[in-house]
Amino acid sequence: MNEKSLWKFLEKHLNAIYSGDFKTYEETSHKDLTLYEWFVAPHRIEGLSFHKFMMENNWASTHDGFNIHLTNKKAQVYNDTAILTYTLIISYKNEGKIEHKVVNETRVVIKFGNTLKVVHVHKSPGK
Amino acid sequence: MNEKSLWKFLEKHLNAIYSGDFKTYEETSHKDLTLYEWFVAPHRIEGLSFHKFMMENNWASTHDGFNIHLTNKKAQVYNDTAILTYTLIISYKNEGKIEHKVVNETRVVIKFGNTLKVVHVHKSPGK
Amino acid sequence: MNEKSLWKFLEKHLNAIYSGDFKTYEETSHKDLTLYEWFVAPHRIEGLSFHKFMMENNWASTHDGFNIHLTNKKAQVYNDTAILTYTLIISYKNEGKIEHKVVNETRVVIKFGNTLKVVHVHKSPGK
Amino acid sequence: MNEKSLWKFLEKHLNAIYSGDFKTYEETSHKDLTLYEWFVAPHRIEGLSFHKFMMENNWASTHDGFNIHLTNKKAQVYNDTAILTYTLIISYKNEGKIEHKVVNETRVVIKFGNTLKVVHVHKSPGK
Amino acid sequence: MNEKSLWKFLEKHLNAIYSGDFKTYEETSHKDLTLYEWFVAPHRIEGLSFHKFMMENNWASTHDGFNIHLTNKKAQVYNDTAILTYTLIISYKNEGKIEHKVVNETRVVIKFGNTLKVVHVHKSPGK
Amino acid sequence: MNEKSLWKFLEKHLNAIYSGDFKTYEETSHKDLTLYEWFVAPHRIEGLSFHKFMMENNWASTHDGFNIHLTNKKAQVYNDTAILTYTLIISYKNEGKIEHKVVNETRVVIKFGNTLKVVHVHKSPGK
Amino acid sequence: MNEKSLWKFLEKHLNAIYSGDFKTYEETSHKDLTLYEWFVAPHRIEGLSFHKFMMENNWASTHDGFNIHLTNKKAQVYNDTAILTYTLIISYKNEGKIEHKVVNETRVVIKFGNTLKVVHVHKSPGK
Amino acid sequence: MNEKSLWKFLEKHLNAIYSGDFKTYEETSHKDLTLYEWFVAPHRIEGLSFHKFMMENNWASTHDGFNIHLTNKKAQVYNDTAILTYTLIISYKNEGKIEHKVVNETRVVIKFGNTLKVVHVHKSPGK
Amino acid sequence: MNEKSLWKFLEKHLNAIYSGDFKTYEETSHKDLTLYEWFVAPHRIEGLSFHKFMMENNWASTHDGFNIHLTNKKAQVYNDTAILTYTLIISYKNEGKIEHKVVNETRVVIKFGNTLKVVHVHKSPGK
Amino acid sequence: MNEKSLWKFLEKHLNAIYSGDFKTYEETSHKDLTLYEWFVAPHRIEGLSFHKFMMENNWASTHDGFNIHLTNKKAQVYNDTAILTYTLIISYKNEGKIEHKVVNETRVVIKFGNTLKVVHVHKSPGK
Amino acid sequence: MNEKSLWKFLEKHLNAIYSGDFKTYEETSHKDLTLYEWFVAPHRIEGLSFHKFMMENNWASTHDGFNIHLTNKKAQVYNDTAILTYTLIISYKNEGKIEHKVVNETRVVIKFGNTLKVVHVHKSPGK
Amino acid sequence: MNEKSLWKFLEKHLNAIYSGDFKTYEETSHKDLTLYEWFVAPHRIEGLSFHKFMMENNWASTHDGFNIHLTNKKAQVYNDTAILTYTLIISYKNEGKIEHKVVNETRVVIKFGNTLKVVHVHKSPGK
Amino acid sequence: MNEKSLWKFLEKHLNAIYSGDFKTYEETSHKDLTLYEWFVAPHRIEGLSFHKFMMENNWASTHDGFNIHLTNKKAQVYNDTAILTYTLIISYKNEGKIEHKVVNETRVVIKFGNTLKVVHVHKSPGK
Amino acid sequence: MNEKSLWKFLEKHLNAIYSGDFKTYEETSHKDLTLYEWFVAPHRIEGLSFHKFMMENNWASTHDGFNIHLTNKKAQVYNDTAILTYTLIISYKNEGKIEHKVVNETRVVIKFGNTLKVVHVHKSPGK
Repeated sequence: MNEKSLWKFLEKHLNAIYSGDFKTYEETSHKDLTLYEWFVAPHRIEGLSFHKFMMENNWASTHDGFNIHLTNKKAQVYNDTAILTYTLIISYKNEGKIEHKVVNETRVVIKFGNTLKVVHVHKSPGK
Repeated sequence: MNEKSLWKFLEKHLNAIYSGDFKTYEETSHKDLTLYEWFVAPHRIEGLSFHKFMMENNWASTHDGFNIHLTNKKAQVYNDTAILTYTLIISYKNEGKIEHKVVNETRVVIKFGNTLKVVHVHKSPGK
Repeated sequence: MNEKSLWKFLEKHLNAIYSGDFKTYEETSHKDLTLYEWFVAPHRIEGLSFHKFMMENNWASTHDGFNIHLTNKKAQVYNDTAILTYTLIISYKNEGKIEHKVVNETRVVIKFGNTLKVVHVHKSPGK
Repeated sequence: MNEKSLWKFLEKHLNAIYSGDFKTYEETSHKDLTLYEWFVAPHRIEGLSFHKFMMENNWASTHDGFNIHLTNKKAQVYNDTAILTYTLIISYKNEGKIEHKVVNETRVVIKFGNTLKVVHVHKSPGK
Repeated sequence: MNEKSLWKFLEKHLNAIYSGDFKTYEETSHKDLTLYEWFVAPHRIEGLSFHKFMMENNWASTHDGFNIHLTNKKAQVYNDTAILTYTLIISYKNEGKIEHKVVNETRVVIKFGNTLKVVHVHKSPGK
Repeated sequence: MNEKSLWKFLEKHLNAIYSGDFKTYEETSHKDLTLYEWFVAPHRIEGLSFHKFMMENNWASTHDGFNIHLTNKKAQVYNDTAILTYTLIISYKNEGKIEHKVVNETRVVIKFGNTLKVVHVHKSPGK
Repeated sequence: MNEKSLWKFLEKHLNAIYSGDFKTYEETSHKDLTLYEWFVAPHRIEGLSFHKFMMENNWASTHDGFNIHLTNKKAQVYNDTAILTYTLIISYKNEGKIEHKVVNETRVVIKFGNTLKVVHVHKSPGK
Repeated sequence: MNEKSLWKFLEKHLNAIYSGDFKTYEETSHKDLTLYEWFVAPHRIEGLSFHKFMMENNWASTHDGFNIHLTNKKAQVYNDTAILTYTLIISYKNEGKIEHKVVNETRVVIKFGNTLKVVHVHKSPGK
Repeated sequence: MNEKSLWKFLEKHLNAIYSGDFKTYEETSHKDLTLYEWFVAPHRIEGLSFHKFMMENNWASTHDGFNIHLTNKKAQVYNDTAILTYTLIISYKNEGKIEHKVVNETRVVIKFGNTLKVVHVHKSPGK
Repeated sequence: MNEKSLWKFLEKHLNAIYSGDFKTYEETSHKDLTLYEWFVAPHRIEGLSFHKFMMENNWASTHDGFNIHLTNKKAQVYNDTAILTYTLIISYKNEGKIEHKVVNETRVVIKFGNTLKVVHVHKSPGK
Repeated sequence: MNEKSLWKFLEKHLNAIYSGDFKTYEETSHKDLTLYEWFVAPHRIEGLSFHKFMMENNWASTHDGFNIHLTNKKAQVYNDTAILTYTLIISYKNEGKIEHKVVNETRVVIKFGNTLKVVHVHKSPGK
Repeated sequence: MNEKSLWKFLEKHLNAIYSGDFKTYEETSHKDLTLYEWFVAPHRIEGLSFHKFMMENNWASTHDGFNIHLTNKKAQVYNDTAILTYTLIISYKNEGKIEHKVVNETRVVIKFGNTLKVVHVHKSPGK
Repeated sequence: MNEKSLWKFLEKHLNAIYSGDFKTYEETSHKDLTLYEWFVAPHRIEGLSFHKFMMENNWASTHDGFNIHLTNKKAQVYNDTAILTYTLIISYKNEGKIEHKVVNETRVVIKFGNTLKVVHVHKSPGK
Repeated sequence: MNEKSLWKFLEKHLNAIYSGDFKTYEETSHKDLTLYEWFVAPHRIEGLSFHKFMMENNWASTHDGFNIHLTNKKAQVYNDTAILTYTLIISYKNEGKIEHKVVNETRVVIKFGNTLKVVHVHKSPGK
């Protein structure tokens, strides 16, 4: 797996999430995706339906414009497995002021044939 | 990879951590291991030296007895890659009373030849 | 009892609760149902009339759209008795923002002839 | 199942827990027992090993004397299944003063042949 | 005194209170009724005039709809004296949300000839 | 029933409680006594065993000296039933300083043959 | 002095205060009346002018309806002197909800010829 | 009644209270004395026994030395009735530092034959 | 100096302050008046200009009606010097409710020829 | 009156207070001295006995060494009357650290024949 | 330098500041003026441009009327150098109420030829 | 490198930031600029895109007028490298009041040929 | 005045203060020195006696070792007047840990003949 | 400059700081080093003497053992200038527990001939 295309794939995946584009999200995710999102619940979430509702309801207040900044990125690649880790700074306007969410993320990407799919996500507080 | 042996491997790995057995920890970890531990710092930590100091200084107050309980365990296996996720409840005595730490963990295990190695860890609050 | 049909039965039962459909709720519950709901009162509640009022008055703010996500599900089946346990994440919009309730639930289901009925419910905080 | 013998069985089971008698606890519990204890973690716990450590370390400060009071008891019996619900008031001395824990409990008891076993426990705050 | 008719009498009495029907309240109460209501004052109140003002001014916000749920009921009957004890859960809408008051109550009922009268009430916090 | 002897009976009963004299307490109480004590739990307590443990362990810190003062006393007598209501001020030394508990109490006394017995107690905050 | 007429006199006096009828207040008070009202100031107030301003400005929010309840009343009469003590519960509507003030009061009444006059008032918190 | 002798009588009475001299207190008080002491309870106390316990147990921490200062004194005398009002500042050492209690007091004194007796006391906060 | 005329002079002086009548204030004050007003600043203020601004801007919210009550008044007179001390309770309406300011005041008055003038003011908290 | 001798007189007076020399305090004070000390009570204190107790018990923690600093001093002299005003900073050691009390003071001094006497004191917070 | 003219100069300088008259401020200040204003920043500010922005934007809410009161003034004059120190009380209306800022100030004034210029300002909290 | 032109360059650079002029910002910054801004995130930010979004959305509320004040400036110059350090006080109007941000800044400037470029920024709290 | 010798003079002066050397402090200070020290009192202090007591009692906890660091120093010199301004960081050990006080200071130094003397000090918070 | 030797140089420099080896610190630092350390003061510190005192007094509690972990390291090299940026996690034992300080650091290193010297340091919070 080529690292540059991995980050490009990730960019597409993240943009889908924050712009509410469920179709692209679904294409870039494995249907049995597992997640830990501490700000929702201290439990593993499985499958895509939970986030479908989230994305359709603008959960991150980003549908009117946002900026994604990834910092301290690292790709660990083992054959068809890539472990992407980074700090995500998502900026958006809230009541006329810019606010930032800062989150540490792991996204594990697997290459099935020619297709990349996110199979696992783990988030924790980035500040 | 056989799921039962994966969990057995994990058990050995975790026991090393909480009993302060750095040698076993080192054997079961990749030398370029990456970690996110929100309770230490909101930054990725790399390599093994950081935890060597931690384990030698009884960071989790568990060297005099503890109990590890894994709940809601799941193994996602893709060829030589295994993504183990679970909630860890670690119990120990603090000033005469039992206390519990509850943590959600991802540990990614890669099979190099015949050897399993943890290559990535991500923790977040489990309660 | 077939596990798949048990979860399907549960899905119907839970959907009735959050959409305010008392009729279906009544059909899927035993008339002497007992409940513990710590957020209402630290007392056992018996019968169906209490929740009739609740459901008719949109107690969970879900009548305009919601998403039910069950995680870490387990069914213990002993002859005609099924003990269903799971973590329920109920998502809904509150003042324009998505909110989540996270609850651990036990629902005991008994098969009377060909009919399944919930006979007991116990809830506790899921975060 | 006779109701009186059910409560007698429960009394024996509870006394084992608070006096630290793991052997009796094990005899009266199914080996795949499931539990929700909100004061430990918002996760289901499975099996007996977790509580073995708890009981051996006097988790409830009751090993030097205590009083168990069950109030508002109810038994729902369906063939070989009994759902016992009640409010437990456990009294004990802490630093020279009596303190009380008040907990609502469900314990599901199944009759396997001639033997009663607790198969599921759910606790929530009783005050 | 027949227990069923006692609870029926109580139901009529409580409905009068929460719907603001002073006339029925007066018929079911002794004119020298005594009360302890800790949420009003830490003093015994005597007679009916105090509650007349209360009921005419919708003190419990229930005049537009409410649900009464009695749980853990007990009747102690000694000749013409009945001591009714129970936990009262009163549900009503406040600013669009359901709220619950939970109160432990004692109501002592005396049979004068063929007429039942409440002669004493004592309330305390039910949660 | 003569009012003076009722108060004398009550005095004996209360003195037993605060001096830890269970024998007298038992003689003056019905074996199926019911109680509401909001400071213990928001649940009705039944029988005498709960208070046996309390009294043997000096629950009110009064075993080394105390003063009972009853104020605003009232006796409602209906044939063999007496409803005694009053405010109890119990004074005792705590770490060298006098402290006071102030409690409103109802105690219902029934005459069985020639013997008076307390059958019900309800307490609520007196300040 | 007849006790019944004393309480009737007091009723008239109190009604004047809460309905803002200064004329009646003046008739039933000695012109050199002394008062302690801890909620105004920790100082004795003398004469009637201070309360004239109070009553004309609806100090207790009662001019649109109120209920006076006196409990635990006692009259100590020594020749032409009466010491009236009681707990006053004054109920009134504040922003659509009933509120209660609870005050312990002493009012000393002196009979001058045929006329009763309040000569001294002392109030303290009744809850 | 001569005003000077009234204050002298009061001085004797107050000194008895703070030095723990119950005998003198009893001589200067009517056996049916009534009191309001907001810092004990929001209830009228009657008789002398309550304060006997108080005085024997150094309730005001004054048995090792104190200073009584009366300010803003006033005597209202009507035949055999005297209403004494004043602010009492009681100073004493607490853990090596001087502390002050400031209390507004009414004491009503009645002359029975040649003997003065306090028949009523009302206290409220003096700062 | 006659005490009655002193208090009359003071009344005129105080009325000027709270009604915003600077002219009268100036006539009754020495031009080199000194003041301590802890609620303005912990510094002595000198001259009249500071209060001119205060009075013209309704500093005490009293321009629409108020009541002045002086309690515990004392005049110490030494030849042409009078030291007037008292507690001032100033009542006024604030957002529809009566409020009270309670202040201890010293005002030193000197007789210059036939004219009285306030030469010094010291205020401190009266509650 | 000579201003220098006035301040010298004051120095002697203040030194007496903080060193606990009651004799000198008495010589420099009028026996009917009046005071306002907001930190003791919001009431005027009269006479010398109150402070005798204070001074004998080291009320200001200064008996082992202190420093008096007067700042912003002013003397207003009218014939035999002197109004001394100043900010007093009293420094002393408390648990090994220097602490400061800062108080604004008025002391009115009258010349009786050849003797100066303080007749009135008013203190308020100096920071 | 004549002290009277110094204070007159200061008055002109301060009036310029609070009325927003930058031209006069500039004329009375040295172009290299240095300042410490703790409420802006814990750093020395140099030059005039910073305050130009402040004054043009009504930083002290005084442009619609204010009163300046200087108390405890002192001038230390050494040849052409004058150190003016005082407490400044600035009063102004804020939302209909008078508010006061109290600041201790040093302003060092140098005479250059015939012109006075402020060269340094240091402010600190005056209460 | 000439120090004066360095500060002039910085002025241009800072003005661009607070007036939202991204073009000038880009011209004066290296494309691989690195930054630490503790108020955004505890992570190094790289490149220019993050601040493009910030500047286009008026992140500092300064687009309608502001004042930049640099104090305690220092330039360390080593060949083509300049380390500029200073405290930045940025003033602006927020809801009608002037507010100040105070920040300590390092900006490292490198001369590439004839062009100055900021290559690194580090900010920390200036108060 | 030579700037270097001014800072040397200041160093000597400050070292005297923190090492408790009053003699040197006195030699380097004018006997009529004025000071503002906001942490002592919001009042100007005059003369040397106040600090004599301070220095003899180790007011700054520095007598066992300390470090003085002056930063951002500036000397404004006008003939025989020098205005020294700087931020003082004073470091010392407190209970085994280093602590820092940070203070902004103005010290005005005047040259009298050949001798430098501090005539005025103004301090304000440096962080 | 070779990047590896730069990080080796930094390691030596940091080890000197936390082990209290001032000599090595001095060798690796420019004598005119500048620093911003927000946890000491919001002011730039210059020179080496300030940290000499710090290091000799174990300011970071690390003299008995510590671990340095650098994460997210970056070196920007421009000719003889290197800008090293990283997150420093310093671990040490405090009262028997491991604690971590997390700091973002910039250290600018200049090559003077063959010698590397740190010339500037800027720290800010790393969590």
